[in-house]
Amino acid sequence: MNKKHLDDLITYLKFPSVSTDSRYKADVRECAEWLKTKIIDVGLKASIHETSGHPIVIGRNIHKEGLPTVMIYGHYDVQPADPIDLWNSPPFEPLIEGDKIFARGSTDNKGQNLAHLLGLGEAINEDGELPVNIIFLVEGEEEIGSPNLEPFLKENKDELECDVIAVSDTGMIGPGIGTFTYGLRGVACMEVKVIGPSRDLHSGVFGGSVANPCSAISKLISSLHKLDGSVNVEGFYDKVKDIEDWEKQAWSNIQVDPNETLLLTGSTELFGESGFTDFERRWSRPTAEVNGIGGGYQGEGSKTVIPSESFVKLSFRLVPDQDPDEILNLVKAHLDKVTPDGVRIECEFGHSGKSYLMDPKSDYGLAAQKALKETFNCDPALIREGGSIPIVQTFKDVLNVDTLLLGLALPDCQIHSPNENYSIDNFYDGIRLNRNLIKQIGGLN
Amino acid sequence: MNKKHLDDLITYLKFPSVSTDSRYKADVRECAEWLKTKIIDVGLKASIHETSGHPIVIGRNIHKEGLPTVMIYGHYDVQPADPIDLWNSPPFEPLIEGDKIFARGSTDNKGQNLAHLLGLGEAINEDGELPVNIIFLVEGEEEIGSPNLEPFLKENKDELECDVIAVSDTGMIGPGIGTFTYGLRGVACMEVKVIGPSRDLHSGVFGGSVANPCSAISKLISSLHKLDGSVNVEGFYDKVKDIEDWEKQAWSNIQVDPNETLLLTGSTELFGESGFTDFERRWSRPTAEVNGIGGGYQGEGSKTVIPSESFVKLSFRLVPDQDPDEILNLVKAHLDKVTPDGVRIECEFGHSGKSYLMDPKSDYGLAAQKALKETFNCDPALIREGGSIPIVQTFKDVLNVDTLLLGLALPDCQIHSPNENYSIDNFYDGIRLNRNLIKQIGGLN
Repeated sequence: MNKKHLDDLITYLKFPSVSTDSRYKADVRECAEWLKTKIIDVGLKASIHETSGHPIVIGRNIHKEGLPTVMIYGHYDVQPADPIDLWNSPPFEPLIEGDKIFARGSTDNKGQNLAHLLGLGEAINEDGELPVNIIFLVEGEEEIGSPNLEPFLKENKDELECDVIAVSDTGMIGPGIGTFTYGLRGVACMEVKVIGPSRDLHSGVFGGSVANPCSAISKLISSLHKLDGSVNVEGFYDKVKDIEDWEKQAWSNIQVDPNETLLLTGSTELFGESGFTDFERRWSRPTAEVNGIGGGYQGEGSKTVIPSESFVKLSFRLVPDQDPDEILNLVKAHLDKVTPDGVRIECEFGHSGKSYLMDPKSDYGLAAQKALKETFNCDPALIREGGSIPIVQTFKDVLNVDTLLLGLALPDCQIHSPNENYSIDNFYDGIRLNRNLIKQIGGLN
Repeated sequence: MNKKHLDDLITYLKFPSVSTDSRYKADVRECAEWLKTKIIDVGLKASIHETSGHPIVIGRNIHKEGLPTVMIYGHYDVQPADPIDLWNSPPFEPLIEGDKIFARGSTDNKGQNLAHLLGLGEAINEDGELPVNIIFLVEGEEEIGSPNLEPFLKENKDELECDVIAVSDTGMIGPGIGTFTYGLRGVACMEVKVIGPSRDLHSGVFGGSVANPCSAISKLISSLHKLDGSVNVEGFYDKVKDIEDWEKQAWSNIQVDPNETLLLTGSTELFGESGFTDFERRWSRPTAEVNGIGGGYQGEGSKTVIPSESFVKLSFRLVPDQDPDEILNLVKAHLDKVTPDGVRIECEFGHSGKSYLMDPKSDYGLAAQKALKETFNCDPALIREGGSIPIVQTFKDVLNVDTLLLGLALPDCQIHSPNENYSIDNFYDGIRLNRNLIKQIGGLN
């Protein structure tokens, strides 16, 4: 184990590269600049590409005729760190405890994409060259739905032509179990504002006589689910693809603690759509979730007002073959229909991305599974995942290639949550996985 | 009009005496100290009485055998000013525009209680003495339910013995219409926390498999009302007194613009319990209102989490003969019953106070109505009010006297809201009303 690699990771994690919050714009930029320097440092050429948002950083070797071209994709932006007070250590001051490094972005996605970059560096260092043509592309807007990557891919289609893409931004079933993910859920986000009186009202003077936007938003939210846990929006399930029998079989064979989800989430019981297993619900069924709700008095004590407004941030996880725009419009139509008297609503559509599904028995799929077996010394698990990497479907649409998802995230890594962490073993395994992967893909030639 | 009176009001309004928020503790104290100085200034003896919360300020003249004793009650504490960004001028920098003075507390209650004090001062100045024994009592905890006033009244029952109490902390039907309020709604507050997973979760990884505390709280809130707008809590209406026929008649005779509530609130339509008029809903029917709701991501953009917790601040306006503690327990039992699987709830009871109802044809009631007629040159309106001054019922219970509610608040004064304001005419009318009131009550002797 090369201690310098860990120092690089610590440096990378110190940048608070929060893409959704404009206060961190300069930090996102500094993180991109550092990454460019690091790419050059490992022996690739590097460039920064401006977008209307945060920049894209690209590294390349000198491409040779006849070698397969692999794009390795990752993102250097991170989720916001709040609620800050639930972190045991500051989110942008990486802390090593045992086998783990704690920091926002440690697993999602800096720790994983840096492992790939350092793997390439080791290969160049030892072999003098790589067995494949490499395009190492790291963007700064994944956590806000990659709004500028698709235009960038389209504008630079020729230079970005490749045979396959590899991404480590997904999970492992458990420590030491190499995991190949062949499907992802999509996502569609929406913010709904409920507007009632023109100002906050005294709840004594006017209470009982005008609609309350916080009560109204509760009715809207309650209307989104049926009692059986399914989503209560007309047309929501019309295009949902059934789970195939071989998948049901493969997933039911996965050996995990039956209480794992409860242990990981701290929930007292599972709760979801009836008629499906935990894996099926999370990997292959769509959802409607509230990500945030607010309205009225938020401070200490009480303030007896009828608030003038309330808001809810909603997101929907989507599965093949649901279309994000179509789903957002179905939800908006539903909300318009159930809005109670006395208030009006405004819906703002946020970022969205399609779900993804590839054939795990393709040549590149099998090569990836070999690399996983070589790295972890056991047959890899074949799974789908509940999270979304919408850009993976965009890669398919624009570049017409599959994406190999070789996750290095452990179930307890707490991505998007306080105390996000990354296994240092996985960091070094990731470096080896990169080397095995480029060897396997180079060998397909 | 004495310009010095307006200067006193401006000084009084500059203290940010927000009782609910501990950050303002020192400001509340300074406000009490200033008030003590002002009481001495008008010619009364003054004292500050410590409580376990904010102090009580008392002014008295030298009491004479045979004169009726009038307690004038008010409060120098104010509601929080937020949402600050909706104020057109800083809430604690009083601004005069036209006939109005804009500041938090201008109507509720500093402008009104200062008018009484200055009225007493003018009477002492011109007549050398007052026609009644006066106890001028101003507390600093009305906006948080007066937790220390009842114990104070009980401990000092002998010194606070009086024949009647006068309070200006209610509304006028319209400008220039003296208004006698003979009933008030009570209030009971509760905060409910909904607890789900032990931390915020990635909505992709776990979405669909565990309960969402923001969805769950929406179900709880939705369950509080029936479709007809009535409150859906078992036993909630059991003790509600019917509106008397003479009241229905008196209220239906009140001449107001039929669109007044819409104009005042900026709501697009009225919304409430079916089968009751606007006045009946607001003055004599109980409510369940959401004063604040929160949970999950509150910042810019989106954050795709399943939040670990959510909260709602509820308040219930109560009418004779509902009991606040009983109602809070009924609501808690209801919420426990409807809490969805996968989450648990914690209910914390906040401040509460009983409703109030007096006989408007009593001697003191008629004296107050004469003072109103003398001040405003028209027959006063007889109403109940929707707001709560729980201490009024406490006065009845502890001191066994009625309270005369002689409001000086206009319908558009925006109490508890941004841009609270007070009519400067009403300020000077309030000074005259005080002089007429003590004359009328002195005359009952």
